[in-house]
Amino acid sequence: MLRQDPISGHCVIVASNRARRPHQLRRTEVRLDDVVCPFCEGQEATTTAEVFAFRDASSQPDQPGWRVRVVPNKYPALELGAGTGSLGRDGDRLFPIRCVEGIHEVFIESAEHLTSISRLNNDRLAEVVAAYLQRMRHFRNDRRIRSAIIFKNVGAAAGASLEHVHSQLMATSFVPHTLAVEVDNGARFFSDHQRCYFCELVGREAATSDRVVFETGHFLVICPFASRFPYEMCILPKQHLSHFENLPEHQAADLADVLRKSVVCLERSLEEATYNFLIHTAPFDMPDLEYYHWHVEVLPRTSGIAGYEWGTGCYINPNAPEDAARALRQWVQS
Amino acid sequence: MLRQDPISGHCVIVASNRARRPHQLRRTEVRLDDVVCPFCEGQEATTTAEVFAFRDASSQPDQPGWRVRVVPNKYPALELGAGTGSLGRDGDRLFPIRCVEGIHEVFIESAEHLTSISRLNNDRLAEVVAAYLQRMRHFRNDRRIRSAIIFKNVGAAAGASLEHVHSQLMATSFVPHTLAVEVDNGARFFSDHQRCYFCELVGREAATSDRVVFETGHFLVICPFASRFPYEMCILPKQHLSHFENLPEHQAADLADVLRKSVVCLERSLEEATYNFLIHTAPFDMPDLEYYHWHVEVLPRTSGIAGYEWGTGCYINPNAPEDAARALRQWVQS
Repeated sequence: MLRQDPISGHCVIVASNRARRPHQLRRTEVRLDDVVCPFCEGQEATTTAEVFAFRDASSQPDQPGWRVRVVPNKYPALELGAGTGSLGRDGDRLFPIRCVEGIHEVFIESAEHLTSISRLNNDRLAEVVAAYLQRMRHFRNDRRIRSAIIFKNVGAAAGASLEHVHSQLMATSFVPHTLAVEVDNGARFFSDHQRCYFCELVGREAATSDRVVFETGHFLVICPFASRFPYEMCILPKQHLSHFENLPEHQAADLADVLRKSVVCLERSLEEATYNFLIHTAPFDMPDLEYYHWHVEVLPRTSGIAGYEWGTGCYINPNAPEDAARALRQWVQS
Repeated sequence: MLRQDPISGHCVIVASNRARRPHQLRRTEVRLDDVVCPFCEGQEATTTAEVFAFRDASSQPDQPGWRVRVVPNKYPALELGAGTGSLGRDGDRLFPIRCVEGIHEVFIESAEHLTSISRLNNDRLAEVVAAYLQRMRHFRNDRRIRSAIIFKNVGAAAGASLEHVHSQLMATSFVPHTLAVEVDNGARFFSDHQRCYFCELVGREAATSDRVVFETGHFLVICPFASRFPYEMCILPKQHLSHFENLPEHQAADLADVLRKSVVCLERSLEEATYNFLIHTAPFDMPDLEYYHWHVEVLPRTSGIAGYEWGTGCYINPNAPEDAARALRQWVQS
């Protein structure tokens, strides 16, 4: 069920089952070494049954021998089969609620107990990206699903409850607010200027280079002009494409390289690389859009969001993105 | 300078001077006992000069003998005199920027080194509320200022850098996004239903009582229907009033009592009461509004905001507000 606040407009999924999930990470980042990591090879029985894996030809599902494994989240925020319904604006005006469905999956990105994707080599990380694409393509064909987001939480302050390298996918029967706003504003920009905002941004940022961290054949990594957090980065595909799942195969290895390099830059620049990354991509039920461009946001979470930000929606960033880009650039590996 | 992202719409104040502020609190909540607290009585010379205080008749400004002291933030996110300007939408379409002004003040709420307002008695906390009202009334008369918010950050995870009890006030030459949205949606609700949303909410919540934590003569404390965080609370004035600074004097002591009781409930319910509170109030340059109602949000920050929330604007709350209200109610002191 999705509850909405009629005044602020924010939406909330009340998922009481998630209170039961075990927390190996606390805010203090103490690792509980006496707890067996459920994501390590050999512990397959402690997770839900895999829905996808890259594994050795001779190995069996839910047995050792895998390199990337995708499993439904054991404590899902949303599930399929809950039925859908209207937002209830016609019903209760004070307490609007909507039946929503969704799927919540986990990508376990290494069989070994690694805590950062910077420890994966490019071939292995390319398989992680290939798994992202495979699951996105799967959900695109599910008529109950309108949109999906892939995200990674690293460190307790970024919302992680386990340290073993993993990402998550949430596929939903609704288009979430942030994405709807981005798509609308992208359309408005295109209508006003007859150009894709993102394509124009790639050109301008590459030309001035003040906020460029690095670039590869297919991607430009910048510290965004309106960065909310110190060392915030955005990975922009140079080629216009609204839907991440349509990424050409030959760009997947380049994206893996870009993700790894970006994380290395963060890890070298920050004492503690606590961050989220988020793949923003157009809703599945929209055709190829000339005005929207998939991209990856990398949000370091070393500085907390304080009362002012919560009360106003306006962020205070003590670190100019031009300074952040200069600092991050030093750590770019060739 | 306020930078805006044309696609997400979010705004950022880049305040490089704030990177220099000392941090006594870290994410790990270690208190550095060898550092002298600048907010304690006797350390007045380490802060900026006070702009307001409740102090003994015989004492001098910026000397001991005070009970509540208001000082400009030493590391302000905004300052007056920077000049104002348009958002620059006509200028650079990729990098809109606006000159904004503001004032950033700190309320030091106790001369003693206390770390929670639950340790202040009601008379002393009523003086804190009186100081909030005094400063809001001061800024209402400043034509450079359109809006102000009072907020409290408690605990490193909530953005606090010092543990000594304090709140902050940010007064700005612009109306921040969150407030503008609330006022607009309040107006729309009124236009649709010929009633103030908040007045109707007070009536409905008090009648059903599922989400009521407690009430006093002038206030109702609830866990909001669309709570984003476990144990989130909202303090709703029963009497319709759009502007906090117009609070009748006889309600100030009641508000102090409500704030203290709310914090006590949180402190008893949570292992670590890390929270923000925010006073939402109508912009100074709007007249009394029949469709908006000032209120206080209390946002516990024990669970972090993870990637899904950042990517979607949709919150996942593992704790139903009806359960939270039941848990908090046990700790209400008479």
